[in-house]
Amino acid sequence: MRDISHASRITSRLLHPRRQPIITGMSENRIPTLHDVLAARPHVYRHLQPTPLINYPTLSQLVSAETWIKHENHQPVGAFKVRGGLVLAAHLTEAERQAGLFTASTGNHGQSIAFAARAHGIRATIAVPEGANPGKVAAMRGLGAEVVFHGPDFDTAREWIMGVAEERHGRFVGPTEEILIHGVGTYALEILEELPDVDVIIVPVGAGSGACATSIVAKTINPNIEVIGVQSEAAPAMQLSWASGALVTAEMNTFAEGIATRVPFANTQRIMHRYLDDFILVSEEAIKEAIRLHLTHSHSLAEGAGAASLAAALHLRERLAGKKVALVLSGGNLAVEKLAMILG
Amino acid sequence: MRDISHASRITSRLLHPRRQPIITGMSENRIPTLHDVLAARPHVYRHLQPTPLINYPTLSQLVSAETWIKHENHQPVGAFKVRGGLVLAAHLTEAERQAGLFTASTGNHGQSIAFAARAHGIRATIAVPEGANPGKVAAMRGLGAEVVFHGPDFDTAREWIMGVAEERHGRFVGPTEEILIHGVGTYALEILEELPDVDVIIVPVGAGSGACATSIVAKTINPNIEVIGVQSEAAPAMQLSWASGALVTAEMNTFAEGIATRVPFANTQRIMHRYLDDFILVSEEAIKEAIRLHLTHSHSLAEGAGAASLAAALHLRERLAGKKVALVLSGGNLAVEKLAMILG
Repeated sequence: MRDISHASRITSRLLHPRRQPIITGMSENRIPTLHDVLAARPHVYRHLQPTPLINYPTLSQLVSAETWIKHENHQPVGAFKVRGGLVLAAHLTEAERQAGLFTASTGNHGQSIAFAARAHGIRATIAVPEGANPGKVAAMRGLGAEVVFHGPDFDTAREWIMGVAEERHGRFVGPTEEILIHGVGTYALEILEELPDVDVIIVPVGAGSGACATSIVAKTINPNIEVIGVQSEAAPAMQLSWASGALVTAEMNTFAEGIATRVPFANTQRIMHRYLDDFILVSEEAIKEAIRLHLTHSHSLAEGAGAASLAAALHLRERLAGKKVALVLSGGNLAVEKLAMILG
Repeated sequence: MRDISHASRITSRLLHPRRQPIITGMSENRIPTLHDVLAARPHVYRHLQPTPLINYPTLSQLVSAETWIKHENHQPVGAFKVRGGLVLAAHLTEAERQAGLFTASTGNHGQSIAFAARAHGIRATIAVPEGANPGKVAAMRGLGAEVVFHGPDFDTAREWIMGVAEERHGRFVGPTEEILIHGVGTYALEILEELPDVDVIIVPVGAGSGACATSIVAKTINPNIEVIGVQSEAAPAMQLSWASGALVTAEMNTFAEGIATRVPFANTQRIMHRYLDDFILVSEEAIKEAIRLHLTHSHSLAEGAGAASLAAALHLRERLAGKKVALVLSGGNLAVEKLAMILG
């Protein structure tokens, strides 16, 4: 099993050799570096503590590998993205600070921007589609953000708020900006500091900032560390794009909104193409089972995206046997209604 | 409302003035001090990180007070007790180290002793009744403990293992030993360090080590800090004992095993009688609702005991209005089946 997986990885590299810019539409920007992540650290640790990296023996038994959970679900807003938001907010011009941050999000990104804006004493304006989850709206408002309902869907809300930001000379924040990756990389560095002999890190992929940041940090420090991305079979756009070397739009039917990407992001694909070792898909049922396992073994509420790394580890059990494996539990914002359905 | 509660507190003090040893059967041992807690810190932090204390704005809105959650559910074994186990293990004689630790537990206490024994390279032998929860047995075994099934109920298992410990010259660990309180107090000190102007701390009471440790630390540093204990109406033995000044055995029908005490503990009653400001009861339904609220607002899986502090804060909403309140989320070991029932 291990050999087969390894062979398929080599094949995919031969078909799509790294370091060649074969993805069309990609940005010409430089790729973030470990140095960028180091420079981001003071901005992160001014407002956040490092999150725990914990080995749970019963999870290790299930995976047949020494299994460590990186608890980004323990962040104050329940997800890793807040690290990026804090770094972005720290680098605004005075004019941008005056106008504030603008974004569109119904999930972790919005809460992160709201948290970062509050930490920096500036205003966040967040557009959400009409009918957005009231709990998440309340969370963003609780953090002091102005939440504006606009339009029937996410894209309408986003386009509208981009216009508003431009009009007011404010800063619109997209989901994969490179400065966000600088901040997100601090969790990867925490893993490497606490577990320098880690063999494999598995990271869920939504827009890709976590996978980019983790692979940049890990590969720069030790190219032998294997970094593996994971997405749901029910929303495979980023995985299909990575595997084919082209930007592939795909169906998006996963319950796990943190890894629900329909249109791939070119800039994160470019980085993942260069640094990521493998990228696998897991079933919706496997993600749900991983949520149940986290409740029992890591005492954690994991959202679908956050649990996907454990689902991937169980899927890759034979390949991981005997290794030291770190699984990024990227977030814990799972609606109670969804949890009830998963347990029901 | 606030005035009424306050009046009832004063009444209970008049009936049962503090500092008088009115509880029969209590130990003559000295009461642990802040100094003991300070001395315990190195033993705790050699193996654990401080846990986060996080303000969730939406919880603050619900409680009408600035509400901070002390996340003892983020401990590697999912509960605060591990702090005490580490301090106890650090003070064994060489003969005790050779024979190892012995205890009886199906829950957080057993996992804590197993964790502490592993951290100190010694053996833990833990007795559980036949039919004990397989998941919890697996967790203790995963931490390297020897788990022995003995007898039909907890008391039989405990009496048996006490005999075994004596025979082998090992150290039997009871649930309320004072050295455990020294270790547990480190979480209270973390609260005071991070939030020195806290007005009220609410702590769930099972055997009482958390409430004792918290009230000793808080009252020594600032007697104006109010420390309030909470138990379930369905298992009120510790609360009835505290309120009456006698050791009162009571029914024990709560689903929340961490605060399920049928026979009160004299030594913790003695300390609580001196230091605790108030001790309230909440309904089983209120605890379940608090579990649901934690899932949404603090991204946390709280066990019943852990959620009881939030249930208490909501119950005391008017009395807490406008204050800074810290709620001890003591643990997150809630069986998936129980969670499913609570959400179902």
